[in-house]
Amino acid sequence: MPPRAVAGPEIERLIQLLGKLPGLGPRSARRAALALVKRRESLMEPLSAALTRAVETVRVCSECGNVDSRDPCTICTDATRDASLIIVVEDVSDLWALERAGAVSARYHVLGGTLSALDGIGPSDLNIESLIRRASDPAVKEVIIAVNATVDGQTTAHYLTEQLAACHVAVSRLAHGVPVGGELDYLDEGTLTAAIRQRRPF
Amino acid sequence: MPPRAVAGPEIERLIQLLGKLPGLGPRSARRAALALVKRRESLMEPLSAALTRAVETVRVCSECGNVDSRDPCTICTDATRDASLIIVVEDVSDLWALERAGAVSARYHVLGGTLSALDGIGPSDLNIESLIRRASDPAVKEVIIAVNATVDGQTTAHYLTEQLAACHVAVSRLAHGVPVGGELDYLDEGTLTAAIRQRRPF
Repeated sequence: MPPRAVAGPEIERLIQLLGKLPGLGPRSARRAALALVKRRESLMEPLSAALTRAVETVRVCSECGNVDSRDPCTICTDATRDASLIIVVEDVSDLWALERAGAVSARYHVLGGTLSALDGIGPSDLNIESLIRRASDPAVKEVIIAVNATVDGQTTAHYLTEQLAACHVAVSRLAHGVPVGGELDYLDEGTLTAAIRQRRPF
Repeated sequence: MPPRAVAGPEIERLIQLLGKLPGLGPRSARRAALALVKRRESLMEPLSAALTRAVETVRVCSECGNVDSRDPCTICTDATRDASLIIVVEDVSDLWALERAGAVSARYHVLGGTLSALDGIGPSDLNIESLIRRASDPAVKEVIIAVNATVDGQTTAHYLTEQLAACHVAVSRLAHGVPVGGELDYLDEGTLTAAIRQRRPF
């Protein structure tokens, strides 16, 4: 038996689109749609307005690849940030994670992914050319390659290091080690080996 | 350290509202917002249009409590359905579940919850009065009380049975037993006891 449309076409369309969001399957999309319909004034109308506004305003920053309602984005135009430091990330979500940590006040460069032989993603598919251009600016002194500690991420990091060699910038990467609050018993051998090898004096 | 706003106000607002949907926490709301921004044409614009359309059209059926773009809803106005049978459910999601099963072509009545002494929900907070009115129509022969098999659900079922006694309709409830495809080893004692007591001849 094919699945029956259980609600009007407007609600079915809403369920179908909500189900395309990451983390929402068909079942949770139905729950979300129902929550929207039930909370019309407190949720459906504001979300509708927020989406309309986002469609109108949100752009990708032509300088760093961040998403914002301004181009260049708020971070790129923020004069209080250290203009000599660029942090290279795979994705905007990584940029957000570093900004939430608030550890450093630098600029970013979003690659838009990693090199991947399996997925057929080569250097020309990533924002590498614009990174080299930005890193060639004499004002830039250091590039931190903050890609994920995955195989593809590390391959990308090595490629970037080679490409950046001609730019006369210091190239660094994030430290490996025990996560703060982490228990040794639950960590993998690679992380523990890295933490021992890169031990720091007390 | 208070959490920093990591993106423009339009995206922050979107994240905040998406986080109010059931099943989405702050982290998955950020992922969903990012997916929307990245898939502007295939996802953000259609979802924005679908929400605007839903805000404009979706109403609660004044007859049965279903949600639809018509009032009375498509189910209430469907002349091919058995008008002598009303299935009483707690919530629209239960109505959808029964429609997906497609086991019966009847009309519904959505209570909007269950009686609950703990939550202070009494008969006047549920759509019981309109159910009695509908069940008093001589065309209605049977009411199936399809509430959840929870304590509050069963309390509500007993209350409804008493109220419907004056309506000259047959009142029935869903069968208890082993779920189709279920393994006995994983079932609770209450379900197994019910399945044994209400056993059926082969």
